[in-house]
Amino acid sequence: MAPVGADLPPPDRGSAPEAQYILTLSCANRPGIVAAVSTYLFESRCNILDANQYDDRETGRFFMRVVVNPVGEGVALDALKEGFAALAGRFAMEWSLRSRFERRRVLLLASKSDHCLADLVYRWRIGEIPMDIAGIVSNHSRETYAHLDLDGIPFHHLPVTRQTKMEQEARIWQIVQESRAELVVLARYMQVLSDGLAAKLAGRCINIHHSFLPGFKGAKPYHQAFERGVKLIGATAHYVTSDLDEGPIIEQDVERVSHHATPEDLVRKGRDIERRVLARAIAWHLEDRVLMNGKRTVVFAD
Amino acid sequence: MAPVGADLPPPDRGSAPEAQYILTLSCANRPGIVAAVSTYLFESRCNILDANQYDDRETGRFFMRVVVNPVGEGVALDALKEGFAALAGRFAMEWSLRSRFERRRVLLLASKSDHCLADLVYRWRIGEIPMDIAGIVSNHSRETYAHLDLDGIPFHHLPVTRQTKMEQEARIWQIVQESRAELVVLARYMQVLSDGLAAKLAGRCINIHHSFLPGFKGAKPYHQAFERGVKLIGATAHYVTSDLDEGPIIEQDVERVSHHATPEDLVRKGRDIERRVLARAIAWHLEDRVLMNGKRTVVFAD
Amino acid sequence: MAPVGADLPPPDRGSAPEAQYILTLSCANRPGIVAAVSTYLFESRCNILDANQYDDRETGRFFMRVVVNPVGEGVALDALKEGFAALAGRFAMEWSLRSRFERRRVLLLASKSDHCLADLVYRWRIGEIPMDIAGIVSNHSRETYAHLDLDGIPFHHLPVTRQTKMEQEARIWQIVQESRAELVVLARYMQVLSDGLAAKLAGRCINIHHSFLPGFKGAKPYHQAFERGVKLIGATAHYVTSDLDEGPIIEQDVERVSHHATPEDLVRKGRDIERRVLARAIAWHLEDRVLMNGKRTVVFAD
Amino acid sequence: MAPVGADLPPPDRGSAPEAQYILTLSCANRPGIVAAVSTYLFESRCNILDANQYDDRETGRFFMRVVVNPVGEGVALDALKEGFAALAGRFAMEWSLRSRFERRRVLLLASKSDHCLADLVYRWRIGEIPMDIAGIVSNHSRETYAHLDLDGIPFHHLPVTRQTKMEQEARIWQIVQESRAELVVLARYMQVLSDGLAAKLAGRCINIHHSFLPGFKGAKPYHQAFERGVKLIGATAHYVTSDLDEGPIIEQDVERVSHHATPEDLVRKGRDIERRVLARAIAWHLEDRVLMNGKRTVVFAD
Repeated sequence: MAPVGADLPPPDRGSAPEAQYILTLSCANRPGIVAAVSTYLFESRCNILDANQYDDRETGRFFMRVVVNPVGEGVALDALKEGFAALAGRFAMEWSLRSRFERRRVLLLASKSDHCLADLVYRWRIGEIPMDIAGIVSNHSRETYAHLDLDGIPFHHLPVTRQTKMEQEARIWQIVQESRAELVVLARYMQVLSDGLAAKLAGRCINIHHSFLPGFKGAKPYHQAFERGVKLIGATAHYVTSDLDEGPIIEQDVERVSHHATPEDLVRKGRDIERRVLARAIAWHLEDRVLMNGKRTVVFAD
Repeated sequence: MAPVGADLPPPDRGSAPEAQYILTLSCANRPGIVAAVSTYLFESRCNILDANQYDDRETGRFFMRVVVNPVGEGVALDALKEGFAALAGRFAMEWSLRSRFERRRVLLLASKSDHCLADLVYRWRIGEIPMDIAGIVSNHSRETYAHLDLDGIPFHHLPVTRQTKMEQEARIWQIVQESRAELVVLARYMQVLSDGLAAKLAGRCINIHHSFLPGFKGAKPYHQAFERGVKLIGATAHYVTSDLDEGPIIEQDVERVSHHATPEDLVRKGRDIERRVLARAIAWHLEDRVLMNGKRTVVFAD
Repeated sequence: MAPVGADLPPPDRGSAPEAQYILTLSCANRPGIVAAVSTYLFESRCNILDANQYDDRETGRFFMRVVVNPVGEGVALDALKEGFAALAGRFAMEWSLRSRFERRRVLLLASKSDHCLADLVYRWRIGEIPMDIAGIVSNHSRETYAHLDLDGIPFHHLPVTRQTKMEQEARIWQIVQESRAELVVLARYMQVLSDGLAAKLAGRCINIHHSFLPGFKGAKPYHQAFERGVKLIGATAHYVTSDLDEGPIIEQDVERVSHHATPEDLVRKGRDIERRVLARAIAWHLEDRVLMNGKRTVVFAD
Repeated sequence: MAPVGADLPPPDRGSAPEAQYILTLSCANRPGIVAAVSTYLFESRCNILDANQYDDRETGRFFMRVVVNPVGEGVALDALKEGFAALAGRFAMEWSLRSRFERRRVLLLASKSDHCLADLVYRWRIGEIPMDIAGIVSNHSRETYAHLDLDGIPFHHLPVTRQTKMEQEARIWQIVQESRAELVVLARYMQVLSDGLAAKLAGRCINIHHSFLPGFKGAKPYHQAFERGVKLIGATAHYVTSDLDEGPIIEQDVERVSHHATPEDLVRKGRDIERRVLARAIAWHLEDRVLMNGKRTVVFAD
């Protein structure tokens, strides 16, 4: 059977034409960082394809993302990392260096509204978001998504009540570990994570909140937006922290609404915004474009 | 089995809490039209829920859309139409009066890229777009969309070559008639309709063109956009006419792009724009919000 | 001397090609309102040029705006109002009926940052916003705006301290009355109005707040936005009420920002948003496009 | 007299807290460029504050912009340039290295509609756009802008007819040279430059076209947009080339319009778009954020 989307632009998955590595780092700013990093890469026979730097002059922190391809025989990723570790130590860097085309494993959590879930599965299928879906967890049954072809993705039905919340979360954490998920996505998952789980997933759990934060935190944000009579509604993708709806923001978008819109109309229009905001945030995270900067993010967007 | 989206806001399909009728009309402007129409509606025991008028001062043409609900025992739609016909004759109106909750039949045409098709099927499934999908026609086989649950929607594989184009179109026309489709949607259908078929479908065939028209007509618009170095890309939903990419525009939207974007990136970003622009245009058409005004449209948007 | 902008599209001021009246009304919804209003207008030999209705199904309130021109000899505005009063009484309407081309008087209040003030004076000068500027009040001296040609607009320097606030406000109120200002605009006026003055100006005082409300109320909103790391900044034009930054919203807009932006960059980018949001809100108010609906607004935008 | 905007964020003009240099370069891509550049800067005791690279994989061309501040005693700009010249030669770079806070001289050309001119003078006055206005040229008289305080900026009234066009352009070129203008801005200057003058100003002449190019080239674009019935209108800032409205695009933006909008409404709404698009393009050019890439631009936007 011909794969869906076979005449689409070649997805990143699989058909990589060459090795590419992504290096990200942050450290206290001081002269010589870029020179040291780029000289190391050059001497390791790596060609810089794309690079971004940002110097937060307020905090004195420096952020960098570099995409390279090894030239000629190049150098193995492991050796490259080993060599870089010494340099990184000298500057006290937080850093990451990995293959651009090695897909990461993502666990999706959803509740009854499945527009984000269905959208992510679609983008995954056509190769738009380069990830492996490690599994889907829902507090609703598989039948809730009967029309969604999960194509062999493991599905975990984990119902939850006030009484069983801790057990259910323990099970989620177990699935994260067993499925080797590197990223957890709350794709309109309508349960608040406990502080404990939020802490365990720090920096690798993305939520989509259906308002333009910091406006309308908490429950039923579209109804709050209706009551306030705003003229634009929005959605916010952010990293989950123990502080509800206060995590570092990755991406936001809005659409115009008028007085005609009922709360139900806002919910409907909002689905489009939520889908694209969440998809962008996930793609940027997976391409190592998002670096944490205290309570904010540095996003080297595409 | 519980239907998907059962806890979403109640879709319009099925669960209408009351009868509602939509009246649209256009005619040469002259005093007294609104008075005559609203008095007729009032005397027919219809309450106006929403209304828009527009007087094109350049052409002297008047456009109106009214949504009413019959009060008390109200009046049957047939009787209401019969009575209105006399009034309409007096003003030489083009007009339509129909039940708001009677879903219309829509035929979807697609080619290999199925992002618009999959999106429309999803919106139909959760009741967001109130329509019956009368069928799907593709020049590719059912297997191309193997992962798409068509849920019983008739699928017609109509391959086409330069030699068989006329026969294939004849078959499409036959399907339109047999399936009683009132609207035909070219959901990234990559074949140009002949003048003959375009004429037969005048005013009820919507295409999504993947550029911000009138820029980049014809083939490979994203590649054209890349060559020109534009800073925003867009999509355009329009009625199909025999003049390629020149039909009356219903809706357009854009997104910002940078010099980083390759043509493939534009194709990827464009999919999001195409999906939402086409969905809006279809929804507005089905809610009788789009009136033809020569080569332009009047859109009483929600 | 040729006026600036003489080859621009003819402004509404002065050169009205015909009489036009704007009727706005709101009342409890019930059948027959549109019929009664449009029949009255027709029988008064008024032709409907543009009309909008909105039925707030939640509150049961009905809103309408109609623009008409008298046909032939037409009818005088006073007589038209007199006749309409009886009809309005029958439906317990709040209503207004006035000449579209009679410019209203607007008092502008500003502080040191003059981007909104300079922008409004410019739009007034070229006839884009059809108003008479009744005066400018500032807590800074005329010299602060030395480069701004006020063209004879009365300028009132009213410095204010914590101790003199009430006296200063009394003076503002006196100027409002003496200058017969129908609308007061806080064009980045950085003083909070007292509850008393806010109450006196209810429904006719527009403020521009430099955030996307309800996010970042109060002082230094761009600095708040920076701290929170939002990816879009905005501005909000709203009617002033005694509840700070909580008045009915008329218009909002946003622009995208990145992690590169310092608070000063946000201030700079924000100026563009503030200018256009405030100008739109004022123009819509002056064209009677904004109707109050409790804590929200109905905006029949152009 | 206190300058207007004295309590605004400190403008770049004058009050630079430190020296900063901007380096831009482009050359054929090959390994080692970033290493060579950053090592040179480091060894010259320059700290990198911001940097962007872009590798056009289609053409094999590499682009870079770096902002540095000299550390400690630093190094004089002239010495830094001298040293860099050798490195640049090795890579056959096109490059520029200059002080960030040295304001460049800009000549503004305008015609009767002065919204862009007035806007640029305002932004210059409050220090938002860091430039010296070398002069204003118009084919209309100084009286046309009677209300605009030019604050000593030289004004040149150069009327033009079909017969005198070449002489008038010769005079413009003379003014460019005498005023040492590094950038020429066509701020809604409604005369088409000859091929000769366009060639002389290649890469340093920015025009604002009042449409979303490539749609609606040539005259009266808003009227063209009206005829075509587009749902968004836009403006485009681009470098002037001998090919009318085909020069490399720097920036574009759009706003939504409806069927209600007359051509005059489009002109009015367009003014806001034109102002901000042109201002952004100029600011980016003056901050060396725009690099030419054949018929396209690389814009390292802020």
